[in-house]
Amino acid sequence: MTKNILPSWRASESRKNIIDFVTKVTKENGKDYVEPKLRIATFDNDGTLWCEKPTIQIEFLKYQLFKNIHNNTKNIHTNTDKKISQLVNDFLHGEVKMNTTLKKILFEQIEGNISLSEFKENVEGFLAQWKHDGTGNEKLTGRTYKELTYEPMSELLDYLRANDFKIFLCSGGSNDFMRVFAEELYEIPHENVIGSFAVNRYVFGAGIEPEDTFFYKQIANFHNTSHGGKPEAINAHTGRIPIFSAGNVLNGGDIAHLTFCKSNPLQSFQLLINHDDAEREVAYAEKNDPSIKAGKAQGWSIVSMKNDWKKVFRNPEVV
Amino acid sequence: MTKNILPSWRASESRKNIIDFVTKVTKENGKDYVEPKLRIATFDNDGTLWCEKPTIQIEFLKYQLFKNIHNNTKNIHTNTDKKISQLVNDFLHGEVKMNTTLKKILFEQIEGNISLSEFKENVEGFLAQWKHDGTGNEKLTGRTYKELTYEPMSELLDYLRANDFKIFLCSGGSNDFMRVFAEELYEIPHENVIGSFAVNRYVFGAGIEPEDTFFYKQIANFHNTSHGGKPEAINAHTGRIPIFSAGNVLNGGDIAHLTFCKSNPLQSFQLLINHDDAEREVAYAEKNDPSIKAGKAQGWSIVSMKNDWKKVFRNPEVV
Repeated sequence: MTKNILPSWRASESRKNIIDFVTKVTKENGKDYVEPKLRIATFDNDGTLWCEKPTIQIEFLKYQLFKNIHNNTKNIHTNTDKKISQLVNDFLHGEVKMNTTLKKILFEQIEGNISLSEFKENVEGFLAQWKHDGTGNEKLTGRTYKELTYEPMSELLDYLRANDFKIFLCSGGSNDFMRVFAEELYEIPHENVIGSFAVNRYVFGAGIEPEDTFFYKQIANFHNTSHGGKPEAINAHTGRIPIFSAGNVLNGGDIAHLTFCKSNPLQSFQLLINHDDAEREVAYAEKNDPSIKAGKAQGWSIVSMKNDWKKVFRNPEVV
Repeated sequence: MTKNILPSWRASESRKNIIDFVTKVTKENGKDYVEPKLRIATFDNDGTLWCEKPTIQIEFLKYQLFKNIHNNTKNIHTNTDKKISQLVNDFLHGEVKMNTTLKKILFEQIEGNISLSEFKENVEGFLAQWKHDGTGNEKLTGRTYKELTYEPMSELLDYLRANDFKIFLCSGGSNDFMRVFAEELYEIPHENVIGSFAVNRYVFGAGIEPEDTFFYKQIANFHNTSHGGKPEAINAHTGRIPIFSAGNVLNGGDIAHLTFCKSNPLQSFQLLINHDDAEREVAYAEKNDPSIKAGKAQGWSIVSMKNDWKKVFRNPEVV
């Protein structure tokens, strides 16, 4: 009966666990039944729904910085603060690694002081033009990032939607960044995107016609939706605890997210993707395996990309 | 054909405008058709869906301050900052009017440094026990606030929902406050509530079992969802411009909200409620009528509670 469900998943424990869970929470009058309004599912994006080697939003930062420099629209190289211009320069030439201070500086360069509509055009340009550079697996070289979504996870989104789950994208990427592609790639509407955010400023008032009002992006009061910031943003946005959450192994970035789901007094399901497929994607692990350890302690389903998935990418497949 | 739609509305221009709008945007292949995913509707709460004389969240502040004083749980009267304790005391005895500084102090007393679950219990206690004091109309004395929702507006929510609109509550009240009653009173789920908010802090980590994690309310990075804060919060939450927005006359609090809706390049509808019914509710206006003037300039539908509504309250009606 479950043959047509999750066709790109091998007949593994993970697939069985997912189907068993969905079956029991949707069985009316069953003891584990959960009413549709409480069937909240949250999915991380980077490394969970699409590739995160390299980190795509960081690639967007590079794309945009190079474009700004080329067009001389933002004078980064001649920034009066020489420390900042040097840091950006070093970053672009691969001479410094990303860290929190640098991340904040780069976000301000790219997401600060720009209209929301101009920002969206920049993201669209990036997604159309910027290609994978072969980081972690040369077979990926030259693909656009839209070609790097995981087919088995798209099937899982469809399966949950067919069972009246409400799906939210909850990831460290910014709200305005992810809204450019979440609907096209995952069928997730704008209002179900929960990313890092600052509240954009609405420009309106006397003498401005309604059609001339607009949003201006700013960085003040920035909330970072990674680590503990995920449950916090899910709570602010939905006022609910999810019953299904999916994340992946990297820097322990989904431990708080999946622990939050586990805290639900209702039946709940946590899915943790382990990137162990060097052939078809990229293999990487954490030092001391904190995500895997938390998953084993709390009973999460740990998915092996190598063993549990027949196919990795939606289109085209790497062979 | 439209007889059973909006039964508590008189056969006025307002009712006709609403029905004409919904009919045209839902007519497939019509030139004004709007696909369901873009049928976003936003409703203010205070004065739009329920009574705002007195302001109900301010009444909650009073309730909670009195309770804290009585239980000696928060030592407001002996606060080491005498200026604050004097101000709160004067406010409770009606000797000072609300202003921005006082609002911030009171919010910190009530919404700061408390767990989210304790806060919700406080709101539930308030809604069950605290009664209308007759402000503006003595016939309202003794009612609970849950008995002060507007029947014609509830019918409008139902009508829009039946036409595949997605309804969001967007009001100056806090997110966590409104989520306690929005589903019961308006059938609006938690995730469609867009109120004033601060991101609550998630308490988790080593040695804390999932079931012992919780949210702690704090006031840092507070976003006030009134005036220009409404479009800003709607944009942050939904990434969309509504095609239907409803607000009311008082302090120009919905001018930005309805202007934002008017900025939509699609067909859109703005509804502004004028509180002109001294018999059945409370009559009040703005100095120089900025909301009415903006409404006339932009072509909003201005609803007269006195003339357009057969009935005001859902239950029981004031006669």
